[in-house]
Amino acid sequence: MTYGDTRIYKKVEVIGTSTESVEMAIQRAVDRAQKSLDKLSWFEVQEVRGHINDDGKVSEYQVVLKIAFELA
Amino acid sequence: MTYGDTRIYKKVEVIGTSTESVEMAIQRAVDRAQKSLDKLSWFEVQEVRGHINDDGKVSEYQVVLKIAFELA
Amino acid sequence: MTYGDTRIYKKVEVIGTSTESVEMAIQRAVDRAQKSLDKLSWFEVQEVRGHINDDGKVSEYQVVLKIAFELA
Amino acid sequence: MTYGDTRIYKKVEVIGTSTESVEMAIQRAVDRAQKSLDKLSWFEVQEVRGHINDDGKVSEYQVVLKIAFELA
Amino acid sequence: MTYGDTRIYKKVEVIGTSTESVEMAIQRAVDRAQKSLDKLSWFEVQEVRGHINDDGKVSEYQVVLKIAFELA
Amino acid sequence: MTYGDTRIYKKVEVIGTSTESVEMAIQRAVDRAQKSLDKLSWFEVQEVRGHINDDGKVSEYQVVLKIAFELA
Amino acid sequence: MTYGDTRIYKKVEVIGTSTESVEMAIQRAVDRAQKSLDKLSWFEVQEVRGHINDDGKVSEYQVVLKIAFELA
Amino acid sequence: MTYGDTRIYKKVEVIGTSTESVEMAIQRAVDRAQKSLDKLSWFEVQEVRGHINDDGKVSEYQVVLKIAFELA
Amino acid sequence: MTYGDTRIYKKVEVIGTSTESVEMAIQRAVDRAQKSLDKLSWFEVQEVRGHINDDGKVSEYQVVLKIAFELA
Amino acid sequence: MTYGDTRIYKKVEVIGTSTESVEMAIQRAVDRAQKSLDKLSWFEVQEVRGHINDDGKVSEYQVVLKIAFELA
Amino acid sequence: MTYGDTRIYKKVEVIGTSTESVEMAIQRAVDRAQKSLDKLSWFEVQEVRGHINDDGKVSEYQVVLKIAFELA
Amino acid sequence: MTYGDTRIYKKVEVIGTSTESVEMAIQRAVDRAQKSLDKLSWFEVQEVRGHINDDGKVSEYQVVLKIAFELA
Repeated sequence: MTYGDTRIYKKVEVIGTSTESVEMAIQRAVDRAQKSLDKLSWFEVQEVRGHINDDGKVSEYQVVLKIAFELA
Repeated sequence: MTYGDTRIYKKVEVIGTSTESVEMAIQRAVDRAQKSLDKLSWFEVQEVRGHINDDGKVSEYQVVLKIAFELA
Repeated sequence: MTYGDTRIYKKVEVIGTSTESVEMAIQRAVDRAQKSLDKLSWFEVQEVRGHINDDGKVSEYQVVLKIAFELA
Repeated sequence: MTYGDTRIYKKVEVIGTSTESVEMAIQRAVDRAQKSLDKLSWFEVQEVRGHINDDGKVSEYQVVLKIAFELA
Repeated sequence: MTYGDTRIYKKVEVIGTSTESVEMAIQRAVDRAQKSLDKLSWFEVQEVRGHINDDGKVSEYQVVLKIAFELA
Repeated sequence: MTYGDTRIYKKVEVIGTSTESVEMAIQRAVDRAQKSLDKLSWFEVQEVRGHINDDGKVSEYQVVLKIAFELA
Repeated sequence: MTYGDTRIYKKVEVIGTSTESVEMAIQRAVDRAQKSLDKLSWFEVQEVRGHINDDGKVSEYQVVLKIAFELA
Repeated sequence: MTYGDTRIYKKVEVIGTSTESVEMAIQRAVDRAQKSLDKLSWFEVQEVRGHINDDGKVSEYQVVLKIAFELA
Repeated sequence: MTYGDTRIYKKVEVIGTSTESVEMAIQRAVDRAQKSLDKLSWFEVQEVRGHINDDGKVSEYQVVLKIAFELA
Repeated sequence: MTYGDTRIYKKVEVIGTSTESVEMAIQRAVDRAQKSLDKLSWFEVQEVRGHINDDGKVSEYQVVLKIAFELA
Repeated sequence: MTYGDTRIYKKVEVIGTSTESVEMAIQRAVDRAQKSLDKLSWFEVQEVRGHINDDGKVSEYQVVLKIAFELA
Repeated sequence: MTYGDTRIYKKVEVIGTSTESVEMAIQRAVDRAQKSLDKLSWFEVQEVRGHINDDGKVSEYQVVLKIAFELA
């Protein structure tokens, strides 16, 4: 990457989910974005939320993140 | 819907307009999103704005909202 | 109400839902608070969200609000 | 309206009230602004609040909004 | 004051200063507003800032506040 | 207090009022919380507001604060 | 869960602590809420903070979260 | 200017426009405020927005700013 | 453009870069959006950032902006 | 002080504490900054918090503030 | 630690990075701060971001945090 | 620069001033930081403000920015 050569980026907002951890929910959102977008570059976490089961266990982490990728 | 089975969502930002009400502006934005996106799931209102006519009447509600849908 | 006579208020955060309108969702949240709390005084809307049905119709408005009431 | 011809706008912050709806509270604030200001152009909702009666009914919507108008 | 009878309020943003305290800076801003506006009703503190003298003493509190008054 | 031994805290939102000062309004809110809650630990000021009398004097400081206490 | 049948939720603000991880601090806050509240539904992380020991090790994660539950 | 001698300031919110630059839009808003207000003192940029022409060129910068002036 | 005839807009988030100025970075982001989107209408600056070279010179302005366009 | 002659300021974030008042906590933070920094110029309050004793008395005000000073 | 004996704290903003987890990135930032600062006391997470590799894997967590330490 | 090799950054908050433009005020703040800090990497604009002269001309742009640099 070279600074100053007029790259353009776009950000999309994606929500990843995981039963395990915040990091895994992030990776899952990035995995999905990777399927349809090229040149993913960075992410920014917007919100961390999650679902609670009837037995009081956190059954799902939901991480809202912005994913930035370079436009060709 | 089942929690914990690794769904992924995307959010897009849309502005609906209506001459009648905030609710109608929301529905109109959702209607348009429904035309090109599958599996719309929820919306979040970001801003409520509007236009004022020369005679001082609110002639249009403009509702900025995020619409979330599940990625296949 | 008299100002300056050392009233104390508490705020609770409640989410009302309605299939009809934002106003109805607010009233429903207030109705429920009224069942268990005395001397409700005012509300402040925090967020307006909603659910979208499979057919692309807004099927539920969800209004997050703070409700303030005077402590005896 | 023509873009780029150096219009200047001012925003004032007004609170409209209504016993009926958010939309009516907005219109009432705009009505009042129209009495003393020319060329009202748009509004932006800042806060939605309200009063709750002793019987637990929402008796008044209070909408804080910014109203923009063009300066001559 | 009676709720639900369609009062309209306006808010202005004023900065009061005082060498003594935050409260005095608030009162001074309100005093000035009272000179040119009728029916002041409430204030909301936006920011508390201040000046520091060369000898490291706080020589002035600056309180940015919104002052609301009822429009006739 | 020992760090790392899995304490749990809860925060409640309370509004204290005083004719005298911001600090007094804070103490009054804490006094009231102390009546019904054990093990109050700290507070965080959210908003400072107040009422203005017809003669333009600040007749009441209203301080919105979060009060945290340890759950047994 | 069925949308549109007028459920009402309440949110409470709880701080969980853990010596291990952010996720564990979340679960501990939820565990405690589960003891006194029914029908916990979701959580939203507000802040992540922590204590640092004299030897420069993070000895405790403190996660401030809102926990939502359905009111009967 | 002398600190601590109880100056009072007011802030107004103005939107300047320019076809050229952010700085020019700021100056134009200040120019207009100068016509009707004395003793302008400082400005604070709130938002930078702009219009895009049909040919994809930025045809107007719109800068929302607060302008502070001393009250006599 | 006619108000009240139910236009719908979408906003996308794009980052433009320039070695010269904030304005140039904005135009470059808009240029790129114009290539793949019709009917661009306005932009809103979200963040202004930049890269600093080893010699301490700002070598690149990075402007994060939302670009709104009308949906057909 | 002369405007426009290219002064540069730095801000540091300091937390002052006091058993007495918000103002005293501010002055104490400024006193400490004055010991190691020259040319302190102004402060901005970020947060007001405090500790509550076992007997429910506010035993300490904690004021988080930014202190700005001119760089030589 | 004793409350009310006029401690003063300073906060610095540090960004830790880790290939493994958010918690590890926090610890690494704290480790570095510990090298040059005494009496570290707590941290507050400001942002969680990260880098994405060409193969779509999160290769680095970047955690922006404020670290507070007591001034002697 | 290589991602994932555990770099640590620090951010400082600096205010640059210029009589000419926002960009020049940014560069001047960076210039000053470069004198006392190594390995400056990026900046983030926090606020744009300015002074207005008695004749209504903007006589100084004041840009508050965070400057990040790598810690050795």
